[in-house]
Amino acid sequence: MIQCPRGTRDFLPDELEKRRAYEAVLRDVARRFGFREIETPIFEEAELFILRSGPNVMKELYAFKDKGDRDIALRPEMTAPVVRAFVNGMSNDPKPIKVFYFGQCFRYERPQSGRYREFFQFGAEIIGSATPETDAEAIAMAAFMIKELGLKNYKVRIGHIGVLRQKIADIGVPKDRTAEVLQKLDKKLYDEAEPILRDIGVSDGDIKSLFELTETVGGVEVLDKVPGDAGTYLGEVIDYLKRMGVDDVEIDLGVVRGLDYYTGMVFEAEAPVLGAEKQICGGGSYTLSELFGGEKVFSTGFAIGFDRILLAMEKEGISYERKGIDAYVVPVSEDVRKDASAIVAKLRESGLAADVDLMGRKMSKALKYASGICARYAVIVGNDELSDGSVTVRDMTTGEQAKVSIEDMASKIKG
Amino acid sequence: MIQCPRGTRDFLPDELEKRRAYEAVLRDVARRFGFREIETPIFEEAELFILRSGPNVMKELYAFKDKGDRDIALRPEMTAPVVRAFVNGMSNDPKPIKVFYFGQCFRYERPQSGRYREFFQFGAEIIGSATPETDAEAIAMAAFMIKELGLKNYKVRIGHIGVLRQKIADIGVPKDRTAEVLQKLDKKLYDEAEPILRDIGVSDGDIKSLFELTETVGGVEVLDKVPGDAGTYLGEVIDYLKRMGVDDVEIDLGVVRGLDYYTGMVFEAEAPVLGAEKQICGGGSYTLSELFGGEKVFSTGFAIGFDRILLAMEKEGISYERKGIDAYVVPVSEDVRKDASAIVAKLRESGLAADVDLMGRKMSKALKYASGICARYAVIVGNDELSDGSVTVRDMTTGEQAKVSIEDMASKIKG
Repeated sequence: MIQCPRGTRDFLPDELEKRRAYEAVLRDVARRFGFREIETPIFEEAELFILRSGPNVMKELYAFKDKGDRDIALRPEMTAPVVRAFVNGMSNDPKPIKVFYFGQCFRYERPQSGRYREFFQFGAEIIGSATPETDAEAIAMAAFMIKELGLKNYKVRIGHIGVLRQKIADIGVPKDRTAEVLQKLDKKLYDEAEPILRDIGVSDGDIKSLFELTETVGGVEVLDKVPGDAGTYLGEVIDYLKRMGVDDVEIDLGVVRGLDYYTGMVFEAEAPVLGAEKQICGGGSYTLSELFGGEKVFSTGFAIGFDRILLAMEKEGISYERKGIDAYVVPVSEDVRKDASAIVAKLRESGLAADVDLMGRKMSKALKYASGICARYAVIVGNDELSDGSVTVRDMTTGEQAKVSIEDMASKIKG
Repeated sequence: MIQCPRGTRDFLPDELEKRRAYEAVLRDVARRFGFREIETPIFEEAELFILRSGPNVMKELYAFKDKGDRDIALRPEMTAPVVRAFVNGMSNDPKPIKVFYFGQCFRYERPQSGRYREFFQFGAEIIGSATPETDAEAIAMAAFMIKELGLKNYKVRIGHIGVLRQKIADIGVPKDRTAEVLQKLDKKLYDEAEPILRDIGVSDGDIKSLFELTETVGGVEVLDKVPGDAGTYLGEVIDYLKRMGVDDVEIDLGVVRGLDYYTGMVFEAEAPVLGAEKQICGGGSYTLSELFGGEKVFSTGFAIGFDRILLAMEKEGISYERKGIDAYVVPVSEDVRKDASAIVAKLRESGLAADVDLMGRKMSKALKYASGICARYAVIVGNDELSDGSVTVRDMTTGEQAKVSIEDMASKIKG
């Protein structure tokens, strides 16, 4: 029996209905924040992702040659494609450009809980603006999305990659080894960072003060310890967030984000219920367009791991109730099957979700089936009722039933 | 500058908003017909598509080996994946299973008008039922979808592949050459079909009568010419369709559909405005599950070429009006920017789509920007108004403006 490929999933109707409902929540928040949707291809030239993430990304890319011998790759994330689309077709539009996206991404890695080879990301980018209020706008929307989904236990942590980079330069780490150090700090692997810093010749005192900086965590008060303009900048971000009603955020200079193109504010959201793989959202301010042949444009964006956040919601016991259809039409005998078809067509025409027995089931089985598909009403079509232009409408919850004229049937069901 | 790969497209916000609106129309019709959505992976084992379509399909597949040396392929269509998902996870569910899907498919072919390497299909399958009313249900939904999209000029043609297959067998074409003959008939290539039939040894009279059969086109009256039970069956389908209000269909025994797995009724819809590439929808009854390791289950389905039908609508001059946002908030000076943020947050909280100036634009430029993004209202935030808890709300259509309390602002805009 052929299965779907390892690390991918089929979403059957019950599961997908739930996912679509949560996707709709995210879409609605994006709409309220004035973001508009953008969609890019499932695959891109592999070069695009190498430019963004470095050659190491190839290890986890679904990369292949197409029949025209082009190197292409399934997208592992959507910021690079969106920025490419901006460079190609929107660079002259009035700024800022506020776009969101939702779709499949692909990484060849070992599947595990909440981690798939085909996974879904919801993300947003504000392109062409680099101000505290822009950063606050992005963070506020991410926080609002998590809240609207109903997740109770989550934490938003805001840092500043510029501060860390400055510190790393100040203590004598050369540019070509910065990424290496940041990667260790990103994962809080101090044991592994230390020998690297020693090897570079950084003093024990400087190593200690670097590690202390990454452990700077708390409310606005910790910003006093943040050197340079970055402290003031983050203070402004926090202030804007407060005015927008977002006050459950934390300053954490240990938020690193793995990638080179981040420039200033960086943030993450996590759901502790997920354990080790607790990150549900990450983002920050960056410049990327110049790598793809455009002008340098400051932007802020984030992505939510849709599968991950749904897993967190599930672990918190958030449940979803299937909607079901409005009416299931049951012909009582073979000779009224075509009348039943006419009646289901009338219900659909009125905007109701209606279905009709296609299997020739007997009444009791048909009602059982109707109940199984969560039909709110059954519409029973029999010769006697038809003769005076009526049907029997049965409330599937209460079991009450009444003779209703075909004319009034739809409005009766609409209630 | 990196572009999106040949035959693929970026959908920028204006275009995508339109596409999503039309997608929503299709989704709404599917809901009304009692179909539920299903989603399968973007790629599958290549074998799945070879089983469905034969080894020739490889020519146009985006097929490659993943890092685990598996032969995988981007899906060229979604019926095979949906039937595979049915075999894997839904085969014991009560029948019929009514599912729809919408998503990207991929074919490596020469891009041309309305034809892309990454294209979008909307389709539906009724799995587990093989009756005239099932076939009518599928055709009715396809026709309803086209009508609801607003396309004026289209034609739905219904045929029966069983009739053709029977005829071909009757005139002495051996089984292993049937596909070859059907392919020629599918494309109306009588000149090319004739030598093949001669070569097989079919008489001139039989060739003539085969061609006549495929030219059998018209209303129910032509069913008299259809041999065997198939005529009665199609008559029933037509009758059900009539009762469901679908009477603009045509019988056409020349509807062939290229693939082996179709069993009985087949149908197509076309939009003549598209010229040579006029087919916008195709489907029919089939069995496929037994090829994927399941039991043999009769089904009926169809797929709509989403790009193709949108192109037809465009050619018919159907236009779409951009929705825009509800309110654009403009701070009149630097010192009220944070108040503006608080106000935009209030509007969003109330469910309105609202945006705020992030670029420090002066009033007249900000209003111009608001008009550019189709904001219905501008909310002007100034110190004087703020001092008594108010803002100025400007109707962007009429230019009228009034001082409104912050409390009443959202309901004023909701109207």
